Amino acid sequence: MTVAPVGRRERKKLATRQALVSATLRLVDERGFDRVTVEDISEAADVAPRTFFNYFASKEDAVVARRQIEPASVRALVLGRPAAEGQLAAVCAVLRELTLPAAEHREELLLRQRVIERHPALVARQLRGYADFERAMVEALAERLGQSAGSASEDALGLRVLVAAATAAARTAASHWMHQAGRQPLDEVLDEAFARLSDLNTGASS
Amino acid sequence: MTVAPVGRRERKKLATRQALVSATLRLVDERGFDRVTVEDISEAADVAPRTFFNYFASKEDAVVARRQIEPASVRALVLGRPAAEGQLAAVCAVLRELTLPAAEHREELLLRQRVIERHPALVARQLRGYADFERAMVEALAERLGQSAGSASEDALGLRVLVAAATAAARTAASHWMHQAGRQPLDEVLDEAFARLSDLNTGASS
Repeated sequence: MTVAPVGRRERKKLATRQALVSATLRLVDERGFDRVTVEDISEAADVAPRTFFNYFASKEDAVVARRQIEPASVRALVLGRPAAEGQLAAVCAVLRELTLPAAEHREELLLRQRVIERHPALVARQLRGYADFERAMVEALAERLGQSAGSASEDALGLRVLVAAATAAARTAASHWMHQAGRQPLDEVLDEAFARLSDLNTGASS
Repeated sequence: MTVAPVGRRERKKLATRQALVSATLRLVDERGFDRVTVEDISEAADVAPRTFFNYFASKEDAVVARRQIEPASVRALVLGRPAAEGQLAAVCAVLRELTLPAAEHREELLLRQRVIERHPALVARQLRGYADFERAMVEALAERLGQSAGSASEDALGLRVLVAAATAAARTAASHWMHQAGRQPLDEVLDEAFARLSDLNTGASS
């Protein structure tokens, strides 16, 4: 989601951000969303309340933080794929890159999902995030298609179906991995899901 | 979603149900969810408030009503597909059957989606409905696979990816159709989306 941090200053910022996210999730899980204040979170993360707002605009933001991916990053990742790569392979590679960092945060992901599912406002927000992400992906792919000479152009519906199906597969893989107690590594689960996707028509059937 | 009604009694019930759904959507859209009572809805639909509760347990229910599909119906539809049909084709055929009745209710669907998107509790509820539907579909497909002799067995992840991708394609098609002012018939849009899905790997790409 983010590039590897370079300097000490950047590392410190990421650590503070992570401390705020962890404190938010833990407190909201324990007490319920409405019973946690920004002051509580800041105290638990050992920073001033003002610092919280340098990182997040609201409690909601701190809960869903890790899920938000900027359209510009999506575009850069998609356009950075090799020109020879097909559209499905490019989408899967980008989704893989964006999903894999989760492998180190399984407990936190489970906690976040539990917190989100208990609060409809957070569910709605997460869903909007998914929709924004898919829209950015569709736009980036259309741009990529336009750039690659000689490729067939594709209508909007086709690209949207491609992106919706691939993100659905990635989310299914991530959820499967989260709930199977991590026995199989996330990258393997993702690869299996993407393989199934590119072979939908000929997978196990009659 | 429902079989064609047989008798007059059944037709009357469906008409009352439809009147309650329409009144709920119209009033909630005009006034906001919290400013509409079951009494308001019943009056607008010209029935007694007690009658409302013969059809729906709550206002939420009346808003999302058309979206709820019973696991038993999903199972019956999936197991009713010809044995020679592949899993993807069977899933798409069932989704087609469940989605097509929407073709006659485009305005109502747009209204419902607008109402839902404004109320996080309804968004969360719709999402739970989707998850329940997909779970029922995965279970029915596993049962179907177990029944068809000689077919390869498939792991849970593979079936979940198949169902997630196909339902994502169906939802994308329905949304595309709803927002393009109905120029292209829903069945054509669905067929295009499913065709793209079964050909993800070889669709327009490099």
